[in-house]
Amino acid sequence: MIVYGRNAVREALAAGRRPVGRIWAAPQAAQEPWLTAREVEVVGPDEVAERCGSLDHQGVCAEAGPYPYADSDGVLTADDALVVCLDQVQDPHNLGAVCRVAEVVGCEGVVIPERRAAEVTPAACKAPAGAVEHLRIAKVRNVADWLAEAKQREAWVYGAAAGSPVRYDEPDYRGRVVLVVGSEGRGLRPRVEAACDQLVSLPVLGKVASLNVSTAAAAILYEILQSRRSG
Amino acid sequence: MIVYGRNAVREALAAGRRPVGRIWAAPQAAQEPWLTAREVEVVGPDEVAERCGSLDHQGVCAEAGPYPYADSDGVLTADDALVVCLDQVQDPHNLGAVCRVAEVVGCEGVVIPERRAAEVTPAACKAPAGAVEHLRIAKVRNVADWLAEAKQREAWVYGAAAGSPVRYDEPDYRGRVVLVVGSEGRGLRPRVEAACDQLVSLPVLGKVASLNVSTAAAAILYEILQSRRSG
Repeated sequence: MIVYGRNAVREALAAGRRPVGRIWAAPQAAQEPWLTAREVEVVGPDEVAERCGSLDHQGVCAEAGPYPYADSDGVLTADDALVVCLDQVQDPHNLGAVCRVAEVVGCEGVVIPERRAAEVTPAACKAPAGAVEHLRIAKVRNVADWLAEAKQREAWVYGAAAGSPVRYDEPDYRGRVVLVVGSEGRGLRPRVEAACDQLVSLPVLGKVASLNVSTAAAAILYEILQSRRSG
Repeated sequence: MIVYGRNAVREALAAGRRPVGRIWAAPQAAQEPWLTAREVEVVGPDEVAERCGSLDHQGVCAEAGPYPYADSDGVLTADDALVVCLDQVQDPHNLGAVCRVAEVVGCEGVVIPERRAAEVTPAACKAPAGAVEHLRIAKVRNVADWLAEAKQREAWVYGAAAGSPVRYDEPDYRGRVVLVVGSEGRGLRPRVEAACDQLVSLPVLGKVASLNVSTAAAAILYEILQSRRSG
């Protein structure tokens, strides 16, 4: 996979979880401190763009191994594991943005469906400033089945669902927690919703009536941290 | 201004704050219920793209008047007005994303600097699903001066600043509140930071150590709502 963007390449190198081969950088980017100790092929910005197939490269791209997906069993090990599960999110930028929040709040992992969903593409690596390199992301065949397994492992599963009568700040979020968030337009699929222990909603006071999935996740995840501190 | 994208065009029409002239739509988009009562020029997707200069048009674009900026005096009228002020945010997508959150949590307005900052461009209209059409957005010549005025009008001014020892959930957010958020990389300018009553930070537990400005704003704005409910 060709990873592009300053933070994405830097964090792929820093995390060291997948091999990084050739690195191409435009003259200015090649001088950044984190690149000086590396073997870099200094090329024009056009060649960087051509190598990575995007204009959003910030002067650097690199040949990296495939994204090292985690095992879905491994993301619920800690007693207070916090995991985000995505349902129907198809935009790699949204996947990336949710991963960035998940990484910042210290989630143990992110779970995504194997099919018909955004994967960890180069765009999903670029968007979240390299967060995916440090985060455990696992693919599962069936989200509802995985949630059932998570419940057997004593996780509480909360689904974000606009319109649920339970406000997001009502539950006690201690222990193993899975937060399921859906796509902007379509929300959670019925089987996934049914697999949740509780559906929670964020208050909506405006007229447009929907948050982007990453901002909704941020609001709920920070509430979870807060509930755990004060709980 | 050519506004593009389904929600952006729909909300420009729904809000009715600026004139909307010609509307161009690809055959499928032209059949959406909110467009059927309108005079629409049905064209190919390529012509829509050419009219708006973006491939992100979702089959529809429209000729709209200039964005109707609000007066900066008008955004702090209510006793419990909640206003977001942006400093150094230069990406229109980030401006749009913050506006979307601000609209959803019921902010009275958003304040942006007149210069060297993202404006309400067509991309900033598209990104937040039309939220900017319903939101009051005011431009000010100097952010620090405007914050000083806001304080004279009995607003409390909170700046989001990573590393501040005051956690975002500590203040009492009742009354008139201005939340100042900065750019991802650079944060707030010193003069802007100095103009805040208090700087607040979100806990960061990961390794990547920075949130996107819209997700940070979401976490803090929802905390403000919550503080007001329980306060």
